[in-house]
Amino acid sequence: MSKSKNSGLRIVVVGASAAGLRAAARAKRLMPESLITVIDEGKIISYGACGLPYYLSGDIESPRALMETSWGTLRDPKFFKNVKGLDVRIQTIVTNVDMENKSISLVNKKTGDAENLQFDKLVLATGAAPVMPPGIPVNHQRISTFKTVEDAVNWRKKLETGQLEKIAIIGSGFIGIELAEAFTGMWDAKVDLIEMENRILPQMLDVEMSVLIEKHLQEQGVQLHKTCRVTAINDITDGLEIVTDNKTIKTEYAIVAIGVRPRIELAVQMGLKIGKHGGIAVDKNLKTSHPDVYAAGDCIEVECFYGEKVVIPLGSLANKQGRAIGDQLAGRNTCFKKVAGSACVKVFDYNVASTGLSETMAARHKIPTRAVWGTFNDLAHYYPEDKNIFLKLIYNPDTLQILGLQAAGEGNVVKRVDVLGNLLMNEGHLEDLLDLEFAYSPPYASALDPLYTLGAAALNQEDGVISQNPIEPLGNGLILDVRTPDEERNHPLKNTLHIPLEELRERVNEIIENEAVEKEAGEKEAIKIICARGTRSAEATRWFVEAGYKNVIYVGGGWFMLNK
Amino acid sequence: MSKSKNSGLRIVVVGASAAGLRAAARAKRLMPESLITVIDEGKIISYGACGLPYYLSGDIESPRALMETSWGTLRDPKFFKNVKGLDVRIQTIVTNVDMENKSISLVNKKTGDAENLQFDKLVLATGAAPVMPPGIPVNHQRISTFKTVEDAVNWRKKLETGQLEKIAIIGSGFIGIELAEAFTGMWDAKVDLIEMENRILPQMLDVEMSVLIEKHLQEQGVQLHKTCRVTAINDITDGLEIVTDNKTIKTEYAIVAIGVRPRIELAVQMGLKIGKHGGIAVDKNLKTSHPDVYAAGDCIEVECFYGEKVVIPLGSLANKQGRAIGDQLAGRNTCFKKVAGSACVKVFDYNVASTGLSETMAARHKIPTRAVWGTFNDLAHYYPEDKNIFLKLIYNPDTLQILGLQAAGEGNVVKRVDVLGNLLMNEGHLEDLLDLEFAYSPPYASALDPLYTLGAAALNQEDGVISQNPIEPLGNGLILDVRTPDEERNHPLKNTLHIPLEELRERVNEIIENEAVEKEAGEKEAIKIICARGTRSAEATRWFVEAGYKNVIYVGGGWFMLNK
Repeated sequence: MSKSKNSGLRIVVVGASAAGLRAAARAKRLMPESLITVIDEGKIISYGACGLPYYLSGDIESPRALMETSWGTLRDPKFFKNVKGLDVRIQTIVTNVDMENKSISLVNKKTGDAENLQFDKLVLATGAAPVMPPGIPVNHQRISTFKTVEDAVNWRKKLETGQLEKIAIIGSGFIGIELAEAFTGMWDAKVDLIEMENRILPQMLDVEMSVLIEKHLQEQGVQLHKTCRVTAINDITDGLEIVTDNKTIKTEYAIVAIGVRPRIELAVQMGLKIGKHGGIAVDKNLKTSHPDVYAAGDCIEVECFYGEKVVIPLGSLANKQGRAIGDQLAGRNTCFKKVAGSACVKVFDYNVASTGLSETMAARHKIPTRAVWGTFNDLAHYYPEDKNIFLKLIYNPDTLQILGLQAAGEGNVVKRVDVLGNLLMNEGHLEDLLDLEFAYSPPYASALDPLYTLGAAALNQEDGVISQNPIEPLGNGLILDVRTPDEERNHPLKNTLHIPLEELRERVNEIIENEAVEKEAGEKEAIKIICARGTRSAEATRWFVEAGYKNVIYVGGGWFMLNK
Repeated sequence: MSKSKNSGLRIVVVGASAAGLRAAARAKRLMPESLITVIDEGKIISYGACGLPYYLSGDIESPRALMETSWGTLRDPKFFKNVKGLDVRIQTIVTNVDMENKSISLVNKKTGDAENLQFDKLVLATGAAPVMPPGIPVNHQRISTFKTVEDAVNWRKKLETGQLEKIAIIGSGFIGIELAEAFTGMWDAKVDLIEMENRILPQMLDVEMSVLIEKHLQEQGVQLHKTCRVTAINDITDGLEIVTDNKTIKTEYAIVAIGVRPRIELAVQMGLKIGKHGGIAVDKNLKTSHPDVYAAGDCIEVECFYGEKVVIPLGSLANKQGRAIGDQLAGRNTCFKKVAGSACVKVFDYNVASTGLSETMAARHKIPTRAVWGTFNDLAHYYPEDKNIFLKLIYNPDTLQILGLQAAGEGNVVKRVDVLGNLLMNEGHLEDLLDLEFAYSPPYASALDPLYTLGAAALNQEDGVISQNPIEPLGNGLILDVRTPDEERNHPLKNTLHIPLEELRERVNEIIENEAVEKEAGEKEAIKIICARGTRSAEATRWFVEAGYKNVIYVGGGWFMLNK
């Protein structure tokens, strides 16, 4: 084997989590002669932070499981020394970086010992820190964020010893939602979930998709408070009073989970360029504004599939970025391409996943959007374990480029998001959805995947078969219910004209005679058509459109999305 | 809305299953003025044929579920007339097609009435018929194929009434495997599964992947007979004697499920071009050699991602092809692009999926292949519901183009196949696997998806870190086991030198001193390194390669694949 010309390179990595350790390990693997030091201020490194809510919930017995490899070895400095050949310094703080002399100053938090290290290349993987909004006391016995193993251990101890019966979770992002489930599920604590936006999971979902999950959360006993911005937390006897701009909530404890912010103190001190969203700016090679400094993980900004720079703190991306930096350090030209931002979260029995842009996000970037919705069978509809899934596909009506997918339900939504996310990165358009291929067998899928059907629905929409956001009011025009008599009886809808799709061709006169409908002059009052999932109503809508009616639309996702 | 210029077109479709009905419905939707007749010789149309094994198994209560829409309406000619505007003629046979006069001759099987229909365009969706090998009696009371609702009803009746305790299934493709499960699962019948190849699911899997599932089948009580070509079936008292070139098996009943063959009688009679694999030849627009005749579904040959024409009888493809023909008929230029051939099948508790080429198939096409294997955690390894999945990635060593993926295990293998299948169709290469994005959260995935890790392993293999097929003999050289002491104690391996990876750097002298190893002259005897899943052994292999050893390889997929 030819040795890399970079052998003997001295590399310092700041941050011993996914991105930093993977960059270090990859570089060492490609350049066994290199000397690599990884610095971390914490005591526990390389732990599965995403698993902490599942330790809290009791799904995972011991926090040690989160610190081990899959074969049960503790991922401590000794492991990284013996197996990866890395010199990992824990409980160590970086006090200064001198880029002129390529020297980094360290202090050991425990011993107070100071040291300078020379380096050729530096990697910043400083991660992100939880955001604490103004007005909330820090270092309070009853209030914390949720980021470290210690946090998880402390909260679980309170639950195990019966000290905690009630808690407020501020923020309903991934962590807030996972914590709401963890406290409620096994421990039966009473959770108040407080969100300043008008929807939960606001980075992932638009309002109408959020609604589907909110109901499920509430059925599980979580008390949800939307559109409540926390302005203060006050001490009261045996607890806290959470003051919001909307209402005041009494509880025992509070966890603040309103998001994270890139840790860029060191980068700022070094004079590196910071992006407009507050992350370290890097190029496609993950190089910062200094040619000898790379950065990766939650502290950087990456390019999204639609060209904008974004901060996306996801462990999956951090790992990939780390490997790319390892390659770069060894002289290989591995880039980190654009991201789609695919993400998923478990919400009790619901699976929730999304990729790309929501309509809310797209509006911020001034990207025009149009959407279609659908309620789908996850599997062949006759297969006993089939569950409903709810999907929203977002695209640019000018270019027909796909912009995003939101998915929720008890079925497999992650698969659809994974396939679509990779199509997004290739700048997929609606037509491409019809070319997707899915393995099919009744226990795993339906013969036509929902993504295919959604793609067809979106193309039909561009032909005039318009779908309506399921939470928009049905209005005063004619509402035509094309479900079967059985469906109508079991789940009646008020103020509708009920004609099953199977009878519609024959009974179309009933609509023409309906005084609410004025053919040609239909602008005043729309006909809205509804069925169970949005398939039959779309078909009926097309008939009316073909017959020359204007202003006929169907309810996207149908009765199921309307009433979930 | 502007009317399509093709309105009033007369279209005849032969075959009322997925491809034919979808083509007809799509064409009618785009051209409401068109006159579309669909002919089928059967009595029951548009049924979920893929669901028949699940009716047999008892998972589905009534066969009617397979004939209904997801909202419970029977998909009979009346439904297609009322909802889709199609004239569907069941129990009707095509006796002649006169392309000069654009006339098709029909006979009603029930009434004997004959009729001629004029058409402008013809669509052939004649499907495929089960193959019966020579030497097997047809129309035998105890022997049948498994294709129709009647077949499923008959076999289930035998099970429900206790008439059947023992059956031979000949052929271990999808249907054979699903039937083996159906008969065994709820009904506890004794199943002999007979396969002429040296592996089960021979269209999907290579031998070493098949082995993983064979063991599981046998644990569930299925008696498997590989490399047994059936040469005759003889009557014996109260049963049958299945004669193979290898052994003779006594049983009560037999189902022949050795595959299907395109039904091309009509196409041949019409003088249409037939492909070399026996399917109707079509172009990218699904047009046959006659400009007014289209064909779709199990009766045609399509182009595979690697350029070859293939017959791939999959319902998912038939549906897509049908829609494309509907578009074509209405003057839209929708193509049916290449296929990857993604497929999946449930085998008791195992999920099995594949896409692209197996090594066996690639060899037939003289395409060079190299492979990597891995045993992976389906989810975050610490998440309680995590299961192992076994993957094999196949690529072209000359071009690094990805050729295929085989996946099996109790975890989610279908998701990986769906993502990879779509990458295959875009002519993806190994590097592209590192750019894939997956939604990550512990209940759904591991932080780095197995496809990423497999891609990295394949690229490392091209750097000299060679993986060995897990069923190849370990040989006489040094076998180095780098698992932990616990793993070694719980699942010992014979004749190995055991040094945990964590101690390997320090104890490397033990290997240098081992007489079986000769550095530089290592060609004689290889060092083989093994761990649990293939990750640690790959890492150790790299160390040896970097240290100048030749002929060091690791066991792909590790102990789990070796011993499953």
